[in-house]
Amino acid sequence: MSTVESRLAAAGLTLPEATTPLAAYVPAVLSGRYVYTSGQLPVVDGELIATGKVGVEIDPEQAAELAARCALNAIAAIKSVIGDLDKVVRVVKVVGFVASDPEFSGQPAVMNGASNLLLEAFGDAGRHARSAVGVAVLPRNAPVEVEVIVEVAD
Amino acid sequence: MSTVESRLAAAGLTLPEATTPLAAYVPAVLSGRYVYTSGQLPVVDGELIATGKVGVEIDPEQAAELAARCALNAIAAIKSVIGDLDKVVRVVKVVGFVASDPEFSGQPAVMNGASNLLLEAFGDAGRHARSAVGVAVLPRNAPVEVEVIVEVAD
Amino acid sequence: MSTVESRLAAAGLTLPEATTPLAAYVPAVLSGRYVYTSGQLPVVDGELIATGKVGVEIDPEQAAELAARCALNAIAAIKSVIGDLDKVVRVVKVVGFVASDPEFSGQPAVMNGASNLLLEAFGDAGRHARSAVGVAVLPRNAPVEVEVIVEVAD
Repeated sequence: MSTVESRLAAAGLTLPEATTPLAAYVPAVLSGRYVYTSGQLPVVDGELIATGKVGVEIDPEQAAELAARCALNAIAAIKSVIGDLDKVVRVVKVVGFVASDPEFSGQPAVMNGASNLLLEAFGDAGRHARSAVGVAVLPRNAPVEVEVIVEVAD
Repeated sequence: MSTVESRLAAAGLTLPEATTPLAAYVPAVLSGRYVYTSGQLPVVDGELIATGKVGVEIDPEQAAELAARCALNAIAAIKSVIGDLDKVVRVVKVVGFVASDPEFSGQPAVMNGASNLLLEAFGDAGRHARSAVGVAVLPRNAPVEVEVIVEVAD
Repeated sequence: MSTVESRLAAAGLTLPEATTPLAAYVPAVLSGRYVYTSGQLPVVDGELIATGKVGVEIDPEQAAELAARCALNAIAAIKSVIGDLDKVVRVVKVVGFVASDPEFSGQPAVMNGASNLLLEAFGDAGRHARSAVGVAVLPRNAPVEVEVIVEVAD
C-alpha cells in the first residue's frame, strides 16, 4: 500500500476504483511527467451522493464534504494511470467548479474540502495552486466538480 | 495531407484556417512539447453558426454538433502552430464550457460531440481527460466553448 | 529590478506582494519549467476593489480594469515562486472567469484588460492562448477571476 493510501486509511478513507466514462474520454491521462484528471463528481459506486445547487439545496458544509469526495475520486483516477501514488511529487493545480446560486459566493470554503483532503493524502507535496468558481449547473446536477493536475517522478 | 486531415476528410470534414483574434492573444501556443489552444467557439468563416443557451434556444443534439465544430476549430488552431498534425502524440485535456439553462444538466452528452471528433481525427491518441461544466453565458452568446491541450513529438 | 517590473513601472504600475491564502493552497506552483497561478481576484492590500456581476453592478470598461488588476496579481504570484520575472520565456495560457449577468456576452473585451497588461509586462513573450467564460458567481462576489500558466527558462 502506498504512503498516500496509508494516510487516507488513517483518516478512515478508502480509495475507490476509478470510474471509466462510457465515452471517448478517460478518467486521467499521463503525459510526460504530468497527470491530468477528468473533472470528478461526488460519485460513490457510480451514483452521485447529492445533487443540486450550493446555496439552495446544498449547504456549504455539505458541499465541502462533496468536494473532498471529488478529490478522493481524482486520486483514484490518478492511480489508474500511474499505479503507485507515491510517484506523485507535487499536486500542481486544482480547479473547482461549484454549482452555485448566483447569491452564493463561498466557493473557497467549499473547495477547502478538496484542498484539505489532498494535503492529508500527499503531505506538503499536496499544496497546490487553485481556482474556485461558481457555475450555473454541472453534469447530472452535481453540486461540485474538481479537476487536478499532478507532477510525477521520472 | 496529414493522416489526421485524411481521417477528417473521410468523415466529410475540412479543416478551416485558424481564426486570428484581434487582440493580445493567439489561437494556440506551442510550449515545450505541449500546445494549448484558446477557447474555441462554433465559428465558421468568422461567424458563430448558432447562439443561445443550451436547454432553451439550443437543444442538446444541436449543441453536440456545435461542440464538434469547436473541436475542429481547435485542431485548426493546433495546426497553425505545429504545421503537421501528425506530430500530435496525445490529446491530453479538453475542457468544455456549455452555456446552460440552470435546469439543463446534460453537458457530458454535448461534449461527446467534441470528444468523438477528436477520437475520429487522432484515433487512440485522441482519448483525453475531460471536464464539462455548465456556465451562465459565453462570449458573443455562443452555446459552447472548447479548449484543448495536446502533446506533440519532440 | 527585472525588465518586466521596469515595463510595469513605466506604465505606472507597481507589483504588489503575492497574497498568501489562509488554506491548503498557495498563490502559485513552480513545476518543471511551468508556473501555474491560483485564480487571482481584483484584490488590493487584501481587499476586493469591486464586487458584483458584470452587466449589472459592473460595466465592461470597469471590468476590464479589474481584469488587469487580476493579471498584475498573477504576475506577483509568479514572482513569489521564481524571484526574477525575467526568467519567464512565455505566457502560455490565460483563463478568465467573468461573473456575468446571463445577458452579458462581452467577456472577451473584459479579458482584454488582462491580456493587454500581460503584453505590456512581457512584450512579445506575453502573447498567450486564452479562454474567457461567463460564470454565475465568483468567490466573495468578485467580478473577475484570472488564472495564468507561464513557461520559465531552465
